[in-house]
Amino acid sequence: MVKPLMFEKPTGMRDTLPNLYRVKESIRKKTSTEMRQWGYEPIETPTLEYFDTVGYASAILEQQLFKLLDQQGHPLVLRPDMTAPIARIAASTLKEKQRPVRLTYDANVFRAQQREGGKTAEFEQVGVELIGDETVSADGEVIALMLSAMNRIELQDVQVAIGNVAFVHALLIDILGSEERAEVLKRYLYEKNYVGFRRHVESLSLSSIDKRRLEKLLKLRGGREVLDEAYGIAETEEARQALDDLVQLSDVLTSFGVEENVRFDLNLLMHMSYYTGVVFEAYSSNLGYPIGSGGRYDELLRRFDQQEAATGFGLRLDLLVEALGSAEVEQEQSTCLIFSHERRAEAVREAKRLRENGETVVLQDIAGIADVDAFSQAYPKVEYLIGTNGGGSSE
Amino acid sequence: MVKPLMFEKPTGMRDTLPNLYRVKESIRKKTSTEMRQWGYEPIETPTLEYFDTVGYASAILEQQLFKLLDQQGHPLVLRPDMTAPIARIAASTLKEKQRPVRLTYDANVFRAQQREGGKTAEFEQVGVELIGDETVSADGEVIALMLSAMNRIELQDVQVAIGNVAFVHALLIDILGSEERAEVLKRYLYEKNYVGFRRHVESLSLSSIDKRRLEKLLKLRGGREVLDEAYGIAETEEARQALDDLVQLSDVLTSFGVEENVRFDLNLLMHMSYYTGVVFEAYSSNLGYPIGSGGRYDELLRRFDQQEAATGFGLRLDLLVEALGSAEVEQEQSTCLIFSHERRAEAVREAKRLRENGETVVLQDIAGIADVDAFSQAYPKVEYLIGTNGGGSSE
Repeated sequence: MVKPLMFEKPTGMRDTLPNLYRVKESIRKKTSTEMRQWGYEPIETPTLEYFDTVGYASAILEQQLFKLLDQQGHPLVLRPDMTAPIARIAASTLKEKQRPVRLTYDANVFRAQQREGGKTAEFEQVGVELIGDETVSADGEVIALMLSAMNRIELQDVQVAIGNVAFVHALLIDILGSEERAEVLKRYLYEKNYVGFRRHVESLSLSSIDKRRLEKLLKLRGGREVLDEAYGIAETEEARQALDDLVQLSDVLTSFGVEENVRFDLNLLMHMSYYTGVVFEAYSSNLGYPIGSGGRYDELLRRFDQQEAATGFGLRLDLLVEALGSAEVEQEQSTCLIFSHERRAEAVREAKRLRENGETVVLQDIAGIADVDAFSQAYPKVEYLIGTNGGGSSE
Repeated sequence: MVKPLMFEKPTGMRDTLPNLYRVKESIRKKTSTEMRQWGYEPIETPTLEYFDTVGYASAILEQQLFKLLDQQGHPLVLRPDMTAPIARIAASTLKEKQRPVRLTYDANVFRAQQREGGKTAEFEQVGVELIGDETVSADGEVIALMLSAMNRIELQDVQVAIGNVAFVHALLIDILGSEERAEVLKRYLYEKNYVGFRRHVESLSLSSIDKRRLEKLLKLRGGREVLDEAYGIAETEEARQALDDLVQLSDVLTSFGVEENVRFDLNLLMHMSYYTGVVFEAYSSNLGYPIGSGGRYDELLRRFDQQEAATGFGLRLDLLVEALGSAEVEQEQSTCLIFSHERRAEAVREAKRLRENGETVVLQDIAGIADVDAFSQAYPKVEYLIGTNGGGSSE
């Protein structure tokens, strides 16, 4: 055994100690309850999946996958997201279930990190998938639910940025003519490298009108007025249809009363390659990166032999904790009963009685404690049942 | 992509669909609550650990480990148990915390399966570790807590078989003289291959008295009277000390009022090589294999540079579900509101109102449903908000 590794964990791996555990548990419970109350049914999938099915479909960069071989030599992955595994189930076990299907999950997902840099390689996601509903109502529902879940944990100043990858795609194809040329600019967009985007646009042999249309795309961020501006650069039916969907979505979100919490960001592109339509990212005012994201992925299920519309989102539990900042940790008010063996039976009865009242009780043989004073300091209430003549109690 | 694998999962991997999820969730909640109320604090550790630390310490057979390499080429394992990771934390991050330390976990652990044979390769364990208390009170507490957790889920006819590996070890060394020769017989015991044990004993060149002592060991199963019989074959101080501990443990368990649920099984040896003293396995009357197990592992922490007493147990959630058999699944009584877009705002308000009352409400745009009759059958209560003149409601 290599000594320096004795207490170490692999790159990007974390322990969760009791105080943080309780904060995460509270957030998990509240957000999950919201999703369940919206009729999403809970599901769990394995940590390991075949690379050739879920690993391939998930479209996380291959170098970010944790890969291994099973005993028969098949390549496996630690699931990098929950959308692909749920698509697998929707297209197989739940194939006959009436659509739309609403599913929710709470699961750890894995992304290999090149080096230690504060990035976690395993993190918990709470999310939903709404499968088999192609209406804008479905897009609106998942965005409203994401906001409602964040509202339930009293996260303030949340903004959801909404885009439509179908609009960006239609615009780029219209101007550039090929998938290949469009791909270059898309990469700048999802890397949010706008300087690179502008430089690349300048270098292209395009009419000045088309160059202006591309530069205009970068400015399409803000309230509903942005959609009106976007129609000005949309010259194909596909691009206009994508904008029509956003106009309708805006109405749906107003019905949900969340119009104050959304803005449009028409150059928003998502990392996951399977998104096909409306996409969105959630931000809180005190974090510079999204705490959750989602969108429409109408093509993913085809990779599992099923053509079907779908949308969903995932929230990162660790980032929700970070965004909440100095949230109150609910301390468990536990009692410690310290006994000597003569009074064990009495101590057991007392512990049982208190626990039946819902209290948390540590029952501790005094012979098992090295330093009674130091040990008992951790408890707000300590009771001693020592010796044959009864002991004292201190609070 | 290899077509036949499209919907498949790796060997021993399972999906958990909503009904089973709810059953597991209910069991998890009740058993965890019991552990928390006994003062055990919740902790979480990463899915991946270094092979050289936790993988090595866990003492699961190497061919049962899922192994992979990280980006720097270090061998990693998917954690095969939670005891070794918690020992790592107890000896590092929690090194300065006053002893005894009580920790609880709820985590998936991984054991690679050679071939598909109904065995799960990933399963959820709920358990506790009690670190830094060498008294028999600690052994008694964890056994009583395991029974109490199973009582809380109303599992009937639970029996805990209790042994002491220190007794078996002392007896075998006394008779056979060497670790190596003792190891052969220990293997038969933990494989529960008593025929093989007897045959091997016959083949040994030992006095007939020693052969009878070894055969007697196999019969030491039953109530407290078994301990008296055991003293008859214990000729060393170590063996007698191990029996004294069990006598004292029997008294402790009587204080907890669980004497009816325990029996002694002095040839019980556990798979995990790190156990050093009292060990135990929980059985329910309708399953032939243990649903939980645990024991004392006073040497494990030394592998993390800390000499410290410890005991604990883990319950397998999937086996608790199996043992409970046809337990009632609490069906969620959800309402489905089906609306057309003219009445969206009204439907959203109604859904919000019902959810605030704690109800589960599916809000569904009728335009998103292919077959309204089939879809609505899944819900005990369906309300239609269709058209401008108000719709009907059916229950």
